[in-house]
Amino acid sequence: MSDSSASASRTPVSAPKPTIGIVGLGLIGGSLGLDLRQRGYRVLGLSRRDRTCERAQERGAVDQASTDPSIMATADLIFLCTPLDVLESTVKTLRPHLRDETVLTDVGSVKQPIVEAIAPLWPNFVAGHPMAGNSDQGIEAAQLDLFADRPYVVTPIAQTSEAAIAQVEAVAKALGSKLYRCTPAEHDRAVAWISHLPVMVSTSLIQACRREQSDAVYELAQQLASSGFRDTSRVGGGNSELGLLMARYNRQALLQSLKDYQATLAGVMAAVEAEDWPQLQATLEQSNGDRPRFL
Amino acid sequence: MSDSSASASRTPVSAPKPTIGIVGLGLIGGSLGLDLRQRGYRVLGLSRRDRTCERAQERGAVDQASTDPSIMATADLIFLCTPLDVLESTVKTLRPHLRDETVLTDVGSVKQPIVEAIAPLWPNFVAGHPMAGNSDQGIEAAQLDLFADRPYVVTPIAQTSEAAIAQVEAVAKALGSKLYRCTPAEHDRAVAWISHLPVMVSTSLIQACRREQSDAVYELAQQLASSGFRDTSRVGGGNSELGLLMARYNRQALLQSLKDYQATLAGVMAAVEAEDWPQLQATLEQSNGDRPRFL
Repeated sequence: MSDSSASASRTPVSAPKPTIGIVGLGLIGGSLGLDLRQRGYRVLGLSRRDRTCERAQERGAVDQASTDPSIMATADLIFLCTPLDVLESTVKTLRPHLRDETVLTDVGSVKQPIVEAIAPLWPNFVAGHPMAGNSDQGIEAAQLDLFADRPYVVTPIAQTSEAAIAQVEAVAKALGSKLYRCTPAEHDRAVAWISHLPVMVSTSLIQACRREQSDAVYELAQQLASSGFRDTSRVGGGNSELGLLMARYNRQALLQSLKDYQATLAGVMAAVEAEDWPQLQATLEQSNGDRPRFL
Repeated sequence: MSDSSASASRTPVSAPKPTIGIVGLGLIGGSLGLDLRQRGYRVLGLSRRDRTCERAQERGAVDQASTDPSIMATADLIFLCTPLDVLESTVKTLRPHLRDETVLTDVGSVKQPIVEAIAPLWPNFVAGHPMAGNSDQGIEAAQLDLFADRPYVVTPIAQTSEAAIAQVEAVAKALGSKLYRCTPAEHDRAVAWISHLPVMVSTSLIQACRREQSDAVYELAQQLASSGFRDTSRVGGGNSELGLLMARYNRQALLQSLKDYQATLAGVMAAVEAEDWPQLQATLEQSNGDRPRFL
């Protein structure tokens, strides 16, 4: 108790916490709700399914949840946690029920097309991307502190109000996330490199093995595969829906990364073909030096 | 005690255990020594360095070790645990000190060029590949049970004597390994797919990111990278010497896998370019189905 009063005396009197709305109560929406309720926010949830609303309430991820969008009428800051391909229709459904000052934000893994689609529908929109998650899905997978120490990227545009950005960033800080701010295009190019390209590179590895002409060798390869293959193939053998959405929504940036990758691979192949071992060694050493900077 | 006597009564009287020689007392050689001494084999070690001989003895990986190749004169079965590029010269150095009936085997990760180089020098040679290891090196990294439940591939040729193969396989079984037998060429094609191709695919991912033209985006990518990038880039950002040796010694099989990979990648890119989402989805789903067969 003495700790908390000491802390209160050091910090300015804070504004009342905004009422949070969460649309889509899956892993991300549910985890947001758990964290924010624990930190004293009032949380309202919207889901398409009654059962999900019930479970979100039982798990303590929301104070109240409903399948009726009018539940969002009293929310000050709404997190859109639906899949990318239903975000636009979700906003259109919500719009008649919201107050003009309500801030909308999303959690989608691609930003440029989302900003282009949503900003014209709702001026008080701040695009965002909390970079957390795991291979699980649904409200049962929701967990506390999913976003702690993880990047949270906010990608405002010229028209985005500073007050709206500040509201989203305050919540991201409350979650314990590391805040980044950049343009939607910068975000999309960065995640093309580190998230979407790896999926295509990795799925191509699994697929390429099918070209082996000897059944005996293909079978032996399966039997001998270990940690190297397991790690390199992981994201390419994962959730296909997620991989597909990434490619659809971040197609331009992904294509550019794929072209750069193709050229790089051709260089590695040329070194092996020409037995240019100093060149290959230099490449492998450079990779060994570069990799820690990404981690 | 009753267990062991019951077991003894069921099994035939076994031949006396061969005296084991280990040439090269690093992670693999040292771990072999630890396991085999624990299982009652007499183990002799050969290293280039006095200090390594001392440490191998102190750690219990050998009964006796020396920098003088004549220590191998009384060995029945010798494991060559040196890097691929010094195997041939090692055998030439050892040859004058060995009895004709001594069996030589190696632990190299490529088999065809090794068999071609060593079999003419020593008819009693059985090529092998225990598929275990980690990123550590040297006698200090040696550990018990490194080979337990791991594949141990033996790749005899027509001239290899069954008695020699049996000696190597008996030791592999004693280590608790899973035994496989195939031709040197089949081995090399299988490991090209699951071990050597992943290194090139993965190092190309790290290298491709360098082609990003915006420093801000490259830096952001480094900051946002997480488990997907970490896993896909692991083997390509690892030990560069190992990657280089793989490519040098398994060049033909690796090149074929690289060509197949390049064609597969081109197909994935074409689907993204043409927005052929059903095609991309089918690919991702097939990868999701294939991957568990490799693990």
